[in-house]
Amino acid sequence: MADSPESESSDVVPHWDELDSKRIADCRIFDVFSKRFRHPEHGTEGDFYVIETRDWVNVVPITEDYRMVLVNQFRFGVKRTSWEIPGGVMENGEEPINAGLRELKEETGYTTGKACLLGSVRPNPAIQSNICHIVLAEQARLTDGLDWDEHEEIVTKAFPIETVYEMVKQGAIFHSLALNALLLFYPHWEKIKARGR
Amino acid sequence: MADSPESESSDVVPHWDELDSKRIADCRIFDVFSKRFRHPEHGTEGDFYVIETRDWVNVVPITEDYRMVLVNQFRFGVKRTSWEIPGGVMENGEEPINAGLRELKEETGYTTGKACLLGSVRPNPAIQSNICHIVLAEQARLTDGLDWDEHEEIVTKAFPIETVYEMVKQGAIFHSLALNALLLFYPHWEKIKARGR
Repeated sequence: MADSPESESSDVVPHWDELDSKRIADCRIFDVFSKRFRHPEHGTEGDFYVIETRDWVNVVPITEDYRMVLVNQFRFGVKRTSWEIPGGVMENGEEPINAGLRELKEETGYTTGKACLLGSVRPNPAIQSNICHIVLAEQARLTDGLDWDEHEEIVTKAFPIETVYEMVKQGAIFHSLALNALLLFYPHWEKIKARGR
Repeated sequence: MADSPESESSDVVPHWDELDSKRIADCRIFDVFSKRFRHPEHGTEGDFYVIETRDWVNVVPITEDYRMVLVNQFRFGVKRTSWEIPGGVMENGEEPINAGLRELKEETGYTTGKACLLGSVRPNPAIQSNICHIVLAEQARLTDGLDWDEHEEIVTKAFPIETVYEMVKQGAIFHSLALNALLLFYPHWEKIKARGR
């Protein structure tokens, strides 16, 4: 096999066939399914649990003076507060960029017309079906009021971008999907630095 | 507030108090809980679903000739095959580095005595309690046979490191936690490149 990335995206192990899927828990923002799969060649079968949820979107908001807007909130999974980039659950039929700009505005009051898709990742291919899209929002400005969901309580702060990457090194940003966004944004940050802003 | 990362790790929003926790689904590799929390100041209460599981470990395996060992397997969450770094669930009482080297050996047959912890992330602070540790394993060599779990079927391949980062750009590596490892490994890769290997 060649070393080109294109060839690596082709399948090198067989796809199992899904035989059956039963919802075993409805958890409002996600559902848990028990699914039975069969190996196409061996014929062996197995039951696997899968968490299904809507797709998510995260936004890297960069201000006109090259700061990154982060949010801090209490996270019920880890029972700690967490510095992250803004984001949330996409609505039905929503495009990633629109969803990202909506979440940015609702959570922080920042808006912009300049946005693009940085990439899309899978939060956990083993047990989770959905996609998380990552949107870059440039020239973001604080123009609007906030529109938080029930129980949301968010502190917003615009950090120098070098401080954000320092926070990654220090473990002060630990949300896997926020870190994905910072990986995808890194080449842009290198270009910004190279042209002296 | 100062811009130093240290000050950012302190709490800027209040911690909710956990009042109650009920297991609503046992899914073998994870459990789902319904938890009731109360805001310490407002007194408002809410129910939140949390996925609890053991901590996980992922390994960045670098060979003596500076290739990265990736694995490809069918992933039941996304129903696709996925290029990732080796990893898995930590055993009771296991240290991250030992767990990483164990998973590396079981999944790929590669072993090494040179390993360190690159960092630790939270797969999803909002709905998931656990930690994913990321281990760097250097000078890894193919010395052992494989020891796969039930239903595991893994293709192993050692890629030039530049190809791995090209695969990230192309979307051929899309597992959030593998991407976290590639972010944390990046400064090491820059050092390797700078000294001409």
